[in-house]
Amino acid sequence: MNDIIIKKMQEIVGADYVVSHLDKVASYCEDETEKAVKPKVCTDCIVVKPSTAEEISEIMKYANENKLPVMARGGGTSLSGAAVAIMPTIIVSMERMNRIIEVDETSMTVECEAGVTLLQIGEHFSKHDTLYFPIHPGDEGAQVGGLVVMNAGGVRAVRYGVMRDQVKALEVVLPTGEIIHAGGKLIKNNAGLDIKDLIIGSEGILGIVTKATLSIKPKDKYTGSLLVSFENEEDAVKAVTEMFKAGIRPLAVEYMEKTAILRAAKDIGMTWPSDVGNVDLYFIVSERKEDDLYEMYETIVGICDENNALDSFVAESSKEQRTLLEIRSHVYPSMHKMVVDAIDAAIPMKNLSRYMEGIKNINNKYGVEISTIGHIGDGNLHNSILTEDASKPECYDQISDEIFKLVIQCQGSITGEHGVGKVRNEKLKMQFTEKELQIMKAIKNVFDPNNILNPGTAL
Amino acid sequence: MNDIIIKKMQEIVGADYVVSHLDKVASYCEDETEKAVKPKVCTDCIVVKPSTAEEISEIMKYANENKLPVMARGGGTSLSGAAVAIMPTIIVSMERMNRIIEVDETSMTVECEAGVTLLQIGEHFSKHDTLYFPIHPGDEGAQVGGLVVMNAGGVRAVRYGVMRDQVKALEVVLPTGEIIHAGGKLIKNNAGLDIKDLIIGSEGILGIVTKATLSIKPKDKYTGSLLVSFENEEDAVKAVTEMFKAGIRPLAVEYMEKTAILRAAKDIGMTWPSDVGNVDLYFIVSERKEDDLYEMYETIVGICDENNALDSFVAESSKEQRTLLEIRSHVYPSMHKMVVDAIDAAIPMKNLSRYMEGIKNINNKYGVEISTIGHIGDGNLHNSILTEDASKPECYDQISDEIFKLVIQCQGSITGEHGVGKVRNEKLKMQFTEKELQIMKAIKNVFDPNNILNPGTAL
Repeated sequence: MNDIIIKKMQEIVGADYVVSHLDKVASYCEDETEKAVKPKVCTDCIVVKPSTAEEISEIMKYANENKLPVMARGGGTSLSGAAVAIMPTIIVSMERMNRIIEVDETSMTVECEAGVTLLQIGEHFSKHDTLYFPIHPGDEGAQVGGLVVMNAGGVRAVRYGVMRDQVKALEVVLPTGEIIHAGGKLIKNNAGLDIKDLIIGSEGILGIVTKATLSIKPKDKYTGSLLVSFENEEDAVKAVTEMFKAGIRPLAVEYMEKTAILRAAKDIGMTWPSDVGNVDLYFIVSERKEDDLYEMYETIVGICDENNALDSFVAESSKEQRTLLEIRSHVYPSMHKMVVDAIDAAIPMKNLSRYMEGIKNINNKYGVEISTIGHIGDGNLHNSILTEDASKPECYDQISDEIFKLVIQCQGSITGEHGVGKVRNEKLKMQFTEKELQIMKAIKNVFDPNNILNPGTAL
Repeated sequence: MNDIIIKKMQEIVGADYVVSHLDKVASYCEDETEKAVKPKVCTDCIVVKPSTAEEISEIMKYANENKLPVMARGGGTSLSGAAVAIMPTIIVSMERMNRIIEVDETSMTVECEAGVTLLQIGEHFSKHDTLYFPIHPGDEGAQVGGLVVMNAGGVRAVRYGVMRDQVKALEVVLPTGEIIHAGGKLIKNNAGLDIKDLIIGSEGILGIVTKATLSIKPKDKYTGSLLVSFENEEDAVKAVTEMFKAGIRPLAVEYMEKTAILRAAKDIGMTWPSDVGNVDLYFIVSERKEDDLYEMYETIVGICDENNALDSFVAESSKEQRTLLEIRSHVYPSMHKMVVDAIDAAIPMKNLSRYMEGIKNINNKYGVEISTIGHIGDGNLHNSILTEDASKPECYDQISDEIFKLVIQCQGSITGEHGVGKVRNEKLKMQFTEKELQIMKAIKNVFDPNNILNPGTAL
């Protein structure tokens, strides 16, 4: 990286907070995207660690004037290459902007700097009696800024929705250097166009989020887990939709193929409590009152039974609950060394069985295992294409193409959680018309006329 | 209106569906905005009644080529002049696009053409055993397209949020004529920039919504009403926030000054069941089980008592419930002939007492009555400036200015429900910086380069 740029960055944030040695820069240049699909990483980058929005504003102004690519760096937990540098880039690491600024118990909000991690928020509220932050995608190293611009989801979307549903207000530094604010601690807000929701899910191409005010929720006193086994996915999907229609909203409903969950259990030497059927539903339930918890178990099991459940298991003790969670959490790690591509389409509940059937057909047609686990409660499944050593099979392009065609046929979205990043850009054309993409690109141009912010991402 | 335009419109939608006689056009040219603040209405307009998105596309292409103003017309229930024609305009009335297209019980959605009224949706689901559409702003003549672009709220936002929280997918005709789609029957959707949320609340300046897919909710079997009286607004606000922190979410929590509610009761010759204190909270409660309903009453009354409630009244019978609702619904009509301006700011819960105190001070300072009722559960209050004959008092500009200054000091939004329309444009500068407004205007320009769609609205 050019010495003039290094010097300028040192002027703005101080020499201690600029990293330019290749060996130290490298780890900032990529994220957790699967190797087989990850774009080629460029490490000719500089890492800058600002401590204020004003410093970021200075960085942006300089970069914009000189048309230099800039990428905000959070926890680096993206699975879609959103945080992979693919050209010489000024990487703005948010790690020093890690203050939890305010918990407002009356408005039920928490205001954080963008570098605050999910772990930090969790720890902060673990000491809190009555309130907590509900969103929980897998990796607790994820930072608030990343959670916002990637519109993170996770298992608890069933009751509380995704990040979009929690973000009340944002502070954002634009690529042209101005600091703007959007939203407020409000439930109703109809003044002006909705810039806040445009930033959420924008994958860091419209601005760098520096602060976010998030809604927090009352903590339920009683939590529990419930496991129900089914012969096939159709019955499982039917049980879930019947449950929602009856007004039952557990915290989470996870779907797992037996193959995947048994592999995970074996891998860590534990025993999964059910060995019947081919698919399991794993419910996490939480209620204000103990009686409600038991009644919830009963109601869910009743609805599952009506939909041909084979077996059910209530994790009564906290030890049993931990076992279930531990094995479920290990599903992805247990197959990680085999994952070529982790597809995370979202499908309308109505078409979910059809989609799952279609995935099985593609699996059989190409003889390549496609594992299906995921957040059935919100129609967001994770279909991982697996090979023994995670190398792309010859038919990878055909498989991928068929899966995404199926997604579109089922009126789904090509990504429910991971975002487009730098790995699904081509697939966008399957979901959107030319005019729709043109509108998105023109909006990008409004915010970032010189296209300096995370080029090659999202669009 | 020019004969060439009339002829062209007749060609597109058929002669039967073009209205150009002044006396018939007039009622299409304005909405329900208070007379004292309503912009000057232009009736040199033409009303066109298309039946498909394709016809609207043709209208738009012609208007765009010829730079003619176009305004979509729904139920005409706007209170901010959003549906007032202020120049010769092609008014696209959506009244013929009034089909409920699909109820998808599995995905829990209803798909409607934009001209479907709230009354129609209500009637449709009144026959439905288990599902309904929860959003309920006052006027059931409101149409889906208007509900979407004005991001309608109403009393039930406490539990279910506003329109934004219900809109799953949209079909929109752009000012340049293209038909685009945004969103899907999805809970998670992270592909591309969020065009759907940009259209929601855009007040009809980005495109004409032709279809919307909305989420529907499970019907609770048991509903009831509860009235609690307090000495002052501070205690009432505290009770509401304590309730939310405890995880209690009634369907609605309305706040009413005693003066306003007693006036309404007297006006229709009914009796309000509480005459103690200065302010009332009116709760609408709904639960799946009867026991839960009674427990909910108890819990709410308990929390209110801890916050100095003076009296409470449970409306047990459906007759009692209807009485409360009828009087509450009559609050606005009972003062309508006195309303100069109905301000609908939204305020963070934390600052709500301070805001209400501030309003009382402005009231006292100018000696002009400012009535406060509204949706306290979501911080959205309706402050109506009243004079005997609804004529602007001399000090109107100062009062209005002080109220909006107070809104901004309290970190609120100048409008929580009604939108900016054509009556609050000047006030936008108090809430947004020049750059923020510039971004919004540039986005408007992306969608509508010739500024033909509802000019003078929202920005």
